[in-house]
Amino acid sequence: MSELYYPGLENVIASETRISFLDVDNEEIVLRGYDLIELAHKVTYLDIVFLLLNGNLPNEEQYKGLEQDLKREAGLPKETIQLLRLLPKNTHLMDVLRTGISALAGEETEIDDRSWAANYRKSIRLLAKVPQIVADSFRAVNNQDPIEPRQDLSYSANFMYMITGQVPTETEAKIFDQSLIVYSEHEMPNSTFTARVIASTQADIIGALTGAVASLKGTLHGGANEAVMHMLLEAGAVDKMEPLILGKLSRKERIMGFGHRVYMKKPDPRALLMKEALQPLATAKGQEHLYQMCLIGEEVMYREKGLHPNLDYYAAPVYYLLGIPIDLFTPVFLAARTIGVCAHVIEQHENNRLFRPRVLYSGPRNLHP
Amino acid sequence: MSELYYPGLENVIASETRISFLDVDNEEIVLRGYDLIELAHKVTYLDIVFLLLNGNLPNEEQYKGLEQDLKREAGLPKETIQLLRLLPKNTHLMDVLRTGISALAGEETEIDDRSWAANYRKSIRLLAKVPQIVADSFRAVNNQDPIEPRQDLSYSANFMYMITGQVPTETEAKIFDQSLIVYSEHEMPNSTFTARVIASTQADIIGALTGAVASLKGTLHGGANEAVMHMLLEAGAVDKMEPLILGKLSRKERIMGFGHRVYMKKPDPRALLMKEALQPLATAKGQEHLYQMCLIGEEVMYREKGLHPNLDYYAAPVYYLLGIPIDLFTPVFLAARTIGVCAHVIEQHENNRLFRPRVLYSGPRNLHP
Repeated sequence: MSELYYPGLENVIASETRISFLDVDNEEIVLRGYDLIELAHKVTYLDIVFLLLNGNLPNEEQYKGLEQDLKREAGLPKETIQLLRLLPKNTHLMDVLRTGISALAGEETEIDDRSWAANYRKSIRLLAKVPQIVADSFRAVNNQDPIEPRQDLSYSANFMYMITGQVPTETEAKIFDQSLIVYSEHEMPNSTFTARVIASTQADIIGALTGAVASLKGTLHGGANEAVMHMLLEAGAVDKMEPLILGKLSRKERIMGFGHRVYMKKPDPRALLMKEALQPLATAKGQEHLYQMCLIGEEVMYREKGLHPNLDYYAAPVYYLLGIPIDLFTPVFLAARTIGVCAHVIEQHENNRLFRPRVLYSGPRNLHP
Repeated sequence: MSELYYPGLENVIASETRISFLDVDNEEIVLRGYDLIELAHKVTYLDIVFLLLNGNLPNEEQYKGLEQDLKREAGLPKETIQLLRLLPKNTHLMDVLRTGISALAGEETEIDDRSWAANYRKSIRLLAKVPQIVADSFRAVNNQDPIEPRQDLSYSANFMYMITGQVPTETEAKIFDQSLIVYSEHEMPNSTFTARVIASTQADIIGALTGAVASLKGTLHGGANEAVMHMLLEAGAVDKMEPLILGKLSRKERIMGFGHRVYMKKPDPRALLMKEALQPLATAKGQEHLYQMCLIGEEVMYREKGLHPNLDYYAAPVYYLLGIPIDLFTPVFLAARTIGVCAHVIEQHENNRLFRPRVLYSGPRNLHP
C-alpha cells in the first residue's frame, strides 16, 4: 500500500467540486466558472455569496432578497454575548470565535437537517451572525460593550462598523468588500478540507465550520496575516525592512506572507489586487512608508528565496490601515471564508462519501503486556 | 491528475504513525505494538493512556504518577460550568461538549506551545477535564447542579460517578474501564484524521480536539451507538427484533452498528469483547432480553446483509445497563478517544507536513460577470 502515501496529501485529489479551482497553469482562480479577480473588480461580496451558494450571479431582485435575508437574521442572542464575556480575557481571538460559533448550534432550529434547503438557510444565518461574533470577540476580551449591527449599512460597511465603531467611508468599505471577496473561497485549503472531512460523517454545518476555525488559527494557514503585520511594525521604517528580513533569513526564521503550496513559482493574483488597493490607501492615510516597506520586502524575498508574496502579505497592511485590530485579521479572514466553507459543506452533504484514510504503521509489533 | 482521485480517501495513506494500526489480515488492532484486546483483558484505561502518550506501558510508580497528575488537574473553572448553562437546553450534547472543550483554550496557559512536553501536559489536563465536561453537559441541559469529581475514586469510577451520581460497583467500573479502552484509539477514523488535519496548520491541541468532537457527532461515525440503543428500545422485546430490522431493511433504512469501512468482512474484535461483557451484566440487571435481542439482530444482519456488528452495537446496551443516559453515549466515546486524538496531534506536531489536497473541478469555465 505504501505507493499511495502522499505526505500532506500533496497533489492528491480529495473531492470532486463545482465550486472553485486553482488553475495554476493559467494563473486563474476559478469560482463557479468566473475569474475571482475579475469578480473582485466588478461585483460585491454579496454577489459572491449568492454565486457560491447558487452557482450563478444574482439579478437585482435576488441580490435584494439576499441582503434582506441577511439583515433579518442579524443579531446575536444575549446568551452568546454573555458567553463570550465568560472566557478569560487573554483568550486568543480565534479561540473565542471558535467557541462562539460552536455555541450557535444550540440556537439553530434546523441543526441536524442536512437537506440542501436547510443547509442554505443555515449558511445565511451563519453569514449574518459570524461577523458580529468576530467583532464582538475583540470587544469581549477588552471589556467593551457589544456594538449592535446597523440595518442601514451595507453588509461590509456594517461589519467594519461593528469592529471599529466608526462608519467607514465609501472607499474604505469598497476596499474591505474586495478583501472579503478575495478571502471568500480558494479551492481546498486546510480549513475547507477540514470542514469537508467533518461534514462527511453527516455532522452538521456549524460543527464543520467550527473545525475550519480551529484549522485557520494555525500559523501555517490563517495566522500568517497577523505575523506579516507584526513584522512590518517591527521594522517600523523603510530603511529597516531589508536588514530585518535578511537577519531573519540568516537566523533561519520563517518569513510569513510568502509562497503558497499550490502557486509555487507564480505570484498570487489576490496579492496583486490587495497591493493595488494598498498604495492609494496608504497615501490617503499618510502612511506611505507601509507601502514602500512592502515593496522592499517583496523584492528582498524574491531575490533571496525566489518567493512571491501571497494574499496575507498585502491584506495585512490594508486591514491595519482600515483600523482593524491585528488580532482580528485572522477572524476577519474566517468571516470572509465562511461562505466558501458553507458551499463546500453543502456540496459534501449532497454527494457524500465518508473520509477514512489509512496509515503507514512504523511502530513495533508483537508485544505483550 | 485524475488518477489520484480516491473518493473518501479510501485506501490512501494519509500519515505515517507509530501509534496504532488495524491489521485486517490478522484481525488485530495494534496499539504501540500490543494487541488491543489483550490489553483490554490485562490492563486498565490509565495504562493505555500512558502507553499511547509514551510508547510503553507504565511501571507501578509511573502509573501512580499519572493517576496523581490527573487528580491534580481535575476540576473545571466555575466559568466553564456557567458557560455550559448559558446554552439552550435543547442543545445536542455533542454540541455542548464541543463548545465546552473549545472554551478550555482560554484557561490553558500553554495553549500555543507545540513542544512535545507542553503537548503532553495539555493532554493530561484534557484527560482530567473532558470527562467532567461530558458528565456536566447532561446535567447543564437538564437544569441539574454539577457533580464535583471525587479524588478517592479511580479515573473510570469517578467518571461514572459524575454521570450517574452513584458510585459504581467494582464490576461496573471494570466493564466501563474496558469500554474506555476499546474506544481509546483506532488508527485513523474520521475524527482522528480531522484532528491531524487541523494540527498540521500548527493549530493547537484543543482546537484539534474540538474538530474531532464535531466529526464524532456525525451519524456515520460516533452517533451510531445512540442509534443502536434507540433501535433496541424501539423493538422492546425479543420477538420484535427480527421484524423491526426486516422492516427497516425493506424500507432501505440504514441499520446502525453494523459494518466498518476497514474491517469489511471480518467481525470487529472490540464488539466481541463488549458482547462478552454484556451477557453477565444483562443477567445481573434482570434485563437478559437486551442480550437476546442483540443476538437476534446480529444473526439477522449477517443473514440478510452479510454484515458483522461493530463496537457501537454492543457498547450501546452495555452503557445503557451501566445507567449512562443515551444522549451521553457519543460524548463518552469522545472522552475515551481523547487520548488517541491527543497522541495523534502530538505525533503530527513532531513531524509535520501541512495537509493540502487538490480537487477535481467539474464546474463551468470561462464565464464573465
